[in-house]
Amino acid sequence: MSLITLMTDFGIKDGNVGVMKGVIWGIAPDVLIVDLSHTISPQNIREAALILGRSAPYFPPGTIHLVVVDPGVGTSRRHIAAHLGTQYFVGPDNGIITPLLERAEAENRPVEIVHTDKRQYWRAEVSHVFHGRDVFSPVAAHLANGVPLQALGSPIHDPMRLSLPEPQRTPFGWQGEVIHLDHFGNISTNIRKEQLGEPGSIEVRLCGVNILGMVHTFGERPPGELVALYGSTGNLIVSVVNGDAAKRLNAAVGDQVEVEIK
Amino acid sequence: MSLITLMTDFGIKDGNVGVMKGVIWGIAPDVLIVDLSHTISPQNIREAALILGRSAPYFPPGTIHLVVVDPGVGTSRRHIAAHLGTQYFVGPDNGIITPLLERAEAENRPVEIVHTDKRQYWRAEVSHVFHGRDVFSPVAAHLANGVPLQALGSPIHDPMRLSLPEPQRTPFGWQGEVIHLDHFGNISTNIRKEQLGEPGSIEVRLCGVNILGMVHTFGERPPGELVALYGSTGNLIVSVVNGDAAKRLNAAVGDQVEVEIK
Amino acid sequence: MSLITLMTDFGIKDGNVGVMKGVIWGIAPDVLIVDLSHTISPQNIREAALILGRSAPYFPPGTIHLVVVDPGVGTSRRHIAAHLGTQYFVGPDNGIITPLLERAEAENRPVEIVHTDKRQYWRAEVSHVFHGRDVFSPVAAHLANGVPLQALGSPIHDPMRLSLPEPQRTPFGWQGEVIHLDHFGNISTNIRKEQLGEPGSIEVRLCGVNILGMVHTFGERPPGELVALYGSTGNLIVSVVNGDAAKRLNAAVGDQVEVEIK
Repeated sequence: MSLITLMTDFGIKDGNVGVMKGVIWGIAPDVLIVDLSHTISPQNIREAALILGRSAPYFPPGTIHLVVVDPGVGTSRRHIAAHLGTQYFVGPDNGIITPLLERAEAENRPVEIVHTDKRQYWRAEVSHVFHGRDVFSPVAAHLANGVPLQALGSPIHDPMRLSLPEPQRTPFGWQGEVIHLDHFGNISTNIRKEQLGEPGSIEVRLCGVNILGMVHTFGERPPGELVALYGSTGNLIVSVVNGDAAKRLNAAVGDQVEVEIK
Repeated sequence: MSLITLMTDFGIKDGNVGVMKGVIWGIAPDVLIVDLSHTISPQNIREAALILGRSAPYFPPGTIHLVVVDPGVGTSRRHIAAHLGTQYFVGPDNGIITPLLERAEAENRPVEIVHTDKRQYWRAEVSHVFHGRDVFSPVAAHLANGVPLQALGSPIHDPMRLSLPEPQRTPFGWQGEVIHLDHFGNISTNIRKEQLGEPGSIEVRLCGVNILGMVHTFGERPPGELVALYGSTGNLIVSVVNGDAAKRLNAAVGDQVEVEIK
Repeated sequence: MSLITLMTDFGIKDGNVGVMKGVIWGIAPDVLIVDLSHTISPQNIREAALILGRSAPYFPPGTIHLVVVDPGVGTSRRHIAAHLGTQYFVGPDNGIITPLLERAEAENRPVEIVHTDKRQYWRAEVSHVFHGRDVFSPVAAHLANGVPLQALGSPIHDPMRLSLPEPQRTPFGWQGEVIHLDHFGNISTNIRKEQLGEPGSIEVRLCGVNILGMVHTFGERPPGELVALYGSTGNLIVSVVNGDAAKRLNAAVGDQVEVEIK
């Protein structure tokens, strides 16, 4: 079995995601395709990196993540394919791989990246504005068919990296920031369980409110109450039970979060 | 062939639906997966029950319907797998199965429900907030792989049931209510063809308007006209030809509907 | 391998697209299914024709395009299956096939169209309002299974055709119109590269603004700048680099576009 995930900022109306699947299945009809997201905010590389980074660990080893959030399409930005630990990536060299790359490096797993410059693995005609269709999809399909990474292009060692915000220790606890607002309005921060642990008593401050203590899950408190807890990938999140915390607190990505351990 | 449908209130942006597919295909790579809906209104169990109930009859026997609309995640609410007539269900025990369960009972078809408490069929690590990924997806995948229902957990006989509104006979016809507003703005009621039949002449009253008579399909009348007809699953619906009846009448789920048979 | 694409105006919430897949896979479990778009503007046949016309060339030969944008459902409008060059179409006879049909005719490729009136290839029960589920899906599935087109119905030679706007030569260049606004806000016109070529110097006028010259891709200019270029299927488009041109210019489908070659 081979599995390709797709993530783009194309939206779901214009048919372009479907066209990519047509190209992939034209080359690799046995591959499974999973839509990860097609409503990444336009050109938002950080959001794509975040969602890829937290989703990839749940896919089988060997999964190929094809990401097309690509404001530099058609310019001199490189296009790459990468083996990052147990997973593969195909897409533009604009930093989206950063979380997967850093995790693979931290865990001493294999990292191998190529500039996908071998045109025999592209479509014959290449548009200046849609490499998702003409370069990334065929490259991912050939990789899924068993073409080795090394055959797809020349090795590179200097992939673009995003500088992602890291939470900081403070005299009283941690200082971090809001990194995502999800469909339910849960506010996700970059402070993680590995850092904060399970403190007996904490206070979380963001957007002008204080939340005392953490819960394990939403349903422990009555609807409408503001709670702090660990989200499903281990980040500290702030939620309203059966409600929308992002809307209530008017939260935005980049907002400061303070945690005081008492 | 095995087929799993997915219904959630996760939205389509955050990658969580894709993650569930990664988990499923990691365990059961031969299963077909169909997205039923991922934009169920947050925590709206009744809406999920309605859409599941009217969609399931069109799937092949043996289809597994995996539904994650789960405001009680991580609390003491049970998680279940069920054999309901010709179909299977995996999800929280919060009443979503009600229409499928009542139909199977009414038709004297097999009903078997288990509390999916056998942890060997879950992911090794289980989040308090995402049982869709860590419990329901692996359970559905193992079921699709042929693990018998009985192996997944202990039998239960008291599943949660929703009390769904039933239309009432009146001296003049039927009284019911609005149960769904669809993408086109069609207003669906709980009055069904089995009840109302094909009366020669009726008057439908809702939201302050009267509609005389029924049509068979939209195109029988000019664009912009308000019509009453049977929807594709046999419910009495009210529509505007090529328009949006819900918006025009400012209709809401729960609004009263009266049908007078003349 | 057999591949079916789906395009509808059903939206993604109500489960109806999933139901069509249930019907298809119940008949043809080995077929691959690609979602092309389910958010076509309600009843917008021209939009469906446009997206199908530009997407189809990227699918493998033999792909079946199942389109349900069908304001005439249940009336006397015919339902058809068609072999159009290298691709197949199943859906209502309302002109959606026009771009594929005209291209096949222009290239002298095979064209064969049948009125799909053989009821043994439909579902047993047929709703007046959902032929997508009861007629088109089973017909497409049987076609994918190898039932010959001729077996599905009686040949017809007068399919509905849309009269699509063609750009006109002017003394100074070309006059055309806006035909699509995409998810990013790119404004697509009906003036094509085959017509305009690669002129040394041009001026594009629409919505009260003038754009001098063309670029090859977005990233050649700074964010926020208005540019003219060829889109990925060869149409002249107007974009804002990393921005939304449709919103900035308040553009609408049907707006006039003038190109002066200097």
